Amino acid sequence: MATKLSKGKKLAKTPVRKIVKAKKVSTVFKPTKLKLLRPVPSDIEIAQAAKLKPILQIAKELGVRENEIELYGPYKAKIKLEILERFKNKPNGKYIDVTAITPTPLGEGKTTTLVGLAQALGAHLGKKTIAAIRQPSQGPTFGIKGGAAGGGYSQVIPMEDFNLHLTGDIHAITAAHNLVAAALDARVMHEKMQDDEKLFNALCPPDKKGKRKFSPSMLRRLKKLGIPKTNPSDLTPEERVRFARLDIDETTITWRRVIDVNDRFLREIEVGRGKDEAGHAHMSGYDITVASEIMAILALTVSLEDMRARFGRMVVATNKSGEAVTAEDLGVAGAVTVLMKDAIKPNLMQTLEGTPATVHAGPFANIAHGNSSIIADMIALKLVGKDGFVLTESGFGADIGMEKFFDIKCRYSGLIPQVVVLVATIRALKMHGGGPKVVAGKPLPAEYTDENLDLLRAGLPNLERHIENALKFGVNVVVAVNSFITDTPAEVELVRAAALKMGATDSVVTTHWADGGKGAKALAEAVAKAAEMPSRFEFLYDAEGPIKEKIETIAAQIYRADGVDYTPEAEEQIARYIRLGFDRLPICMAKTHLSFTTDPTKKGAPTGFRITVREIRASVGAGFLYPILGDMRTMPGLPTRPVFYDVDLDLRTGRVIGLI
Amino acid sequence: MATKLSKGKKLAKTPVRKIVKAKKVSTVFKPTKLKLLRPVPSDIEIAQAAKLKPILQIAKELGVRENEIELYGPYKAKIKLEILERFKNKPNGKYIDVTAITPTPLGEGKTTTLVGLAQALGAHLGKKTIAAIRQPSQGPTFGIKGGAAGGGYSQVIPMEDFNLHLTGDIHAITAAHNLVAAALDARVMHEKMQDDEKLFNALCPPDKKGKRKFSPSMLRRLKKLGIPKTNPSDLTPEERVRFARLDIDETTITWRRVIDVNDRFLREIEVGRGKDEAGHAHMSGYDITVASEIMAILALTVSLEDMRARFGRMVVATNKSGEAVTAEDLGVAGAVTVLMKDAIKPNLMQTLEGTPATVHAGPFANIAHGNSSIIADMIALKLVGKDGFVLTESGFGADIGMEKFFDIKCRYSGLIPQVVVLVATIRALKMHGGGPKVVAGKPLPAEYTDENLDLLRAGLPNLERHIENALKFGVNVVVAVNSFITDTPAEVELVRAAALKMGATDSVVTTHWADGGKGAKALAEAVAKAAEMPSRFEFLYDAEGPIKEKIETIAAQIYRADGVDYTPEAEEQIARYIRLGFDRLPICMAKTHLSFTTDPTKKGAPTGFRITVREIRASVGAGFLYPILGDMRTMPGLPTRPVFYDVDLDLRTGRVIGLI
Repeated sequence: MATKLSKGKKLAKTPVRKIVKAKKVSTVFKPTKLKLLRPVPSDIEIAQAAKLKPILQIAKELGVRENEIELYGPYKAKIKLEILERFKNKPNGKYIDVTAITPTPLGEGKTTTLVGLAQALGAHLGKKTIAAIRQPSQGPTFGIKGGAAGGGYSQVIPMEDFNLHLTGDIHAITAAHNLVAAALDARVMHEKMQDDEKLFNALCPPDKKGKRKFSPSMLRRLKKLGIPKTNPSDLTPEERVRFARLDIDETTITWRRVIDVNDRFLREIEVGRGKDEAGHAHMSGYDITVASEIMAILALTVSLEDMRARFGRMVVATNKSGEAVTAEDLGVAGAVTVLMKDAIKPNLMQTLEGTPATVHAGPFANIAHGNSSIIADMIALKLVGKDGFVLTESGFGADIGMEKFFDIKCRYSGLIPQVVVLVATIRALKMHGGGPKVVAGKPLPAEYTDENLDLLRAGLPNLERHIENALKFGVNVVVAVNSFITDTPAEVELVRAAALKMGATDSVVTTHWADGGKGAKALAEAVAKAAEMPSRFEFLYDAEGPIKEKIETIAAQIYRADGVDYTPEAEEQIARYIRLGFDRLPICMAKTHLSFTTDPTKKGAPTGFRITVREIRASVGAGFLYPILGDMRTMPGLPTRPVFYDVDLDLRTGRVIGLI
Repeated sequence: MATKLSKGKKLAKTPVRKIVKAKKVSTVFKPTKLKLLRPVPSDIEIAQAAKLKPILQIAKELGVRENEIELYGPYKAKIKLEILERFKNKPNGKYIDVTAITPTPLGEGKTTTLVGLAQALGAHLGKKTIAAIRQPSQGPTFGIKGGAAGGGYSQVIPMEDFNLHLTGDIHAITAAHNLVAAALDARVMHEKMQDDEKLFNALCPPDKKGKRKFSPSMLRRLKKLGIPKTNPSDLTPEERVRFARLDIDETTITWRRVIDVNDRFLREIEVGRGKDEAGHAHMSGYDITVASEIMAILALTVSLEDMRARFGRMVVATNKSGEAVTAEDLGVAGAVTVLMKDAIKPNLMQTLEGTPATVHAGPFANIAHGNSSIIADMIALKLVGKDGFVLTESGFGADIGMEKFFDIKCRYSGLIPQVVVLVATIRALKMHGGGPKVVAGKPLPAEYTDENLDLLRAGLPNLERHIENALKFGVNVVVAVNSFITDTPAEVELVRAAALKMGATDSVVTTHWADGGKGAKALAEAVAKAAEMPSRFEFLYDAEGPIKEKIETIAAQIYRADGVDYTPEAEEQIARYIRLGFDRLPICMAKTHLSFTTDPTKKGAPTGFRITVREIRASVGAGFLYPILGDMRTMPGLPTRPVFYDVDLDLRTGRVIGLI
């Protein structure tokens, strides 16, 4: 089962001949000097004015050999998995998770802080450091949110490449996911239209010499069915039917379609309304691609072999006897693997100060687990070595992204984190203290720009609870106050005192947005110090435990809910998963990132509330159960004036304009 | 208007500084030696056993400088458009179109012949030759058809990269096309839900200082509306409404969605069935991505500037006053351009014998124009130079792919072809002579494998008509008989005599599938000779003429129909296009590739039939009108056992297996 993965050991089997012969490469790191302008220009102006090192040089500085990467143009590369074999006996670097307090709808600069911290550690403290961040979703890039490459003088570049297509990983997921959807609907229709003999003949047609052959995936299905035969002609009529009819119960289909565009009209659709599909129309719908189980698998897998096995385990429906029907049963898991064979390789880019960054998998910690990939972190930890640092990002607030990082990602990777960097802003804390509503695109009310210690003090419990939560996992906590020009010394000191009182190792103000790595030097020193202090990482719950116990542990320990209620649908699903043996999986909660509760308007550190599990999906391939709390949207929409209005190509220079 | 494009001259404006400084590179071509095995192994076995040259070497051998390409791994690269500036005064090479007679459903080996011919010219006759082929659609790769990299010892490699993702061009089209769809549906909904003031405020919100700003695309819309203002605050209330309300007539929406997966259940769908879109549900549907107007534009554009302008002209619907609503009006044309900025660069790969191939845009000559890109051909013709050859592919039979190559592609490119290579097989000719039905996956009946001169003779009129058609365009015709082991000397001679009698310059048997370039040496010599003979290329019709006249010219001259009928819907559309000024565009017929007629069962050279234009779409951005003849499917389906059943990754070697 998924919880017993070999944690990367299987990589040893991939061929490494070519790599062994390669020449030694130089590893002298040359930081890129920043020229800090005032006022700070727009993100895209800074990014486009930046000096880029060839990505080959970034790779060489990291000790990556030329034949261990694949170039995608001069500034992006994919790192081959074979590199893990060469480094297998090398110790890992320090593993740092960057997360945040409960954010305002504007976000509190988590990626920006991570990148600034990487620039500080790498370019200012001389530590080998990799920023391990997530590929953004292209949908929101053109919608409200814009890109996700960091901001100001702390960015990953080229920002256009980062935000658009990158090396095609998300496109590969879209293609693979939708191939499964097409295979599923076509199969249901073909089974309804063909009698047993026709169906078997269509699946195993005789070739020109009259011989029939099973595909490897068919042999796997036969094994699952307990039919120990390899020649189609040997099957009894009854075995033929059992093999050929998946007998899918259409009411149980859970596999939807995905697209990386904010298309709200695809949320719920009726498919098969054409005349050739008459009588087979049914409901379906689209999620944003990053919410795909295939994305979750990309982020959580530890090797090609493991990825193949996980794709085979993806459950798309149950049959009329209540048994799970998988992508393997559809015969499509191999094709999905082939479509994803390049996507599994992490992407290498650079920060504005020429330090390395891996970009791989996983945004959307509310509706997914929202972490960058295990594979990228595994490689990065080896590349930086014992004295180096890997800064990995978990999405949104620590109640969701960080909890999933520890309980899901670290469980599957076996990698041990030492420090959590908790990003906070005075703005967000004032909001938690009861400040007026913060709305994207609207000017901030005066409460946020003038000193207001009472409001700030009232918001501190949100920070305190996140610190307390992180400490429960046995790691050290450093608070990073991502500063605004309007923050006052008294405000910053108030936060610091509260953080230290709650048990944080340190609380440091950073100005990396305006100053690049230099502005995060104090934070870097605090993080380096915290990484040397003792820590004793542990999971919050036992994955082998009962489903409700796991959900309730997270609800009580992290969200601080008084209890959990389940809809009848969720109760039914729990019973089904127990029956199918899917109950021994970790939990990936789908919950708003705007509150500890399931109500996005409840700020601060609420108590005296319960949560309701509306529905539980099983991502058996990814290896988690996915309870949906409240009304979670899995497909964003577009506003009346989306970001795309301003995006264009400057035909004179060939440059992208208007991306934010 | 689209018919008056500057044919590439505008490229001069893109910056070229960096390129001028680059060093001279060696151009000595080293063919890759083939080891021909018997029996001929499977395509994927041959492809995976092949020796690959680094793509950088291929580029250098062509005279492309290192900074004029962008690597995508070691064996694929994109060629930058700036190269055209460096070569602008160099003469073009010989321009050869490879097309075919009306094929069987199995295809007659057009790509394979093109690749074999390129190997022969390049590796055996020492001519600088580029195979300019099309990127295959991934949908059919996993459906019935399999890949499209050629076959046997005439293939473009690596075949996995060729058939899967390539460098992401089709994924970029999918993303761009669906962004327009999402923008359109969201806009219609937002207009219905907001009053005039709210709508204007949402489109031009005041910033933090209370200032409003138009985006560049909004300024373009204002210009179109004849409102000569640049400050939103200066608009009168009436002008605000005219600017902000696109006022789309929902019944006229022609923009669908696209996906590169064979998902028949998406052919016709009802979108907006979610509770948040209640009251706004409506019909939509998916076409396969390669049928997208954006794909057509990619293939037909001549520069970045031209591509941007074409994206702006794409019509998505008309408003309630009957005026066209474009992607520019939606504000999305700039974002589409940005998404396509890398896709416009042709991809460079290699054949099994180490000769260069460009792979760019356009399959599906039945439901699209089905030609590889103008940009790729423009670059290739410069790279091979005066004595070199560019072999470009036009899809399916010459009645559709070749006609569109001449009348649409050559019209927009201004490039002059000299020779048409018409690929024929004895098998297809026998089918046209009345042979039994040819079905994919089923053994061929004896008529096709035994000598049968009567059947063959009866089928020759199909070949003769295609030759006659090609000659109407004033080019020289060489017939290539793509040979099977079962073809007899008498059969081949019968074809040759008929071809010469019809005016072909030559008719040559090729064995490139089994023998690689060596097997197409005679064909190469015939083509080289034909390219030296006089030719006088001309279009079949005047694009400025009336719509019906153009349609009827193609129907009479190429298909040999007695006449054309129009449904009331088509009549209405013609009237609308005349009113909107869209009538002066060339014609891109959507017609079955399996017959000269619109009935796929009518083989040979039918006469005494009429065709019906069911519907005419306007691809104003691509620059053609798109009449749909008969019941054309724009989204394929999956069979019960699709190709994907056999596709998997060999985890021991990391290699793809089962691709065909």
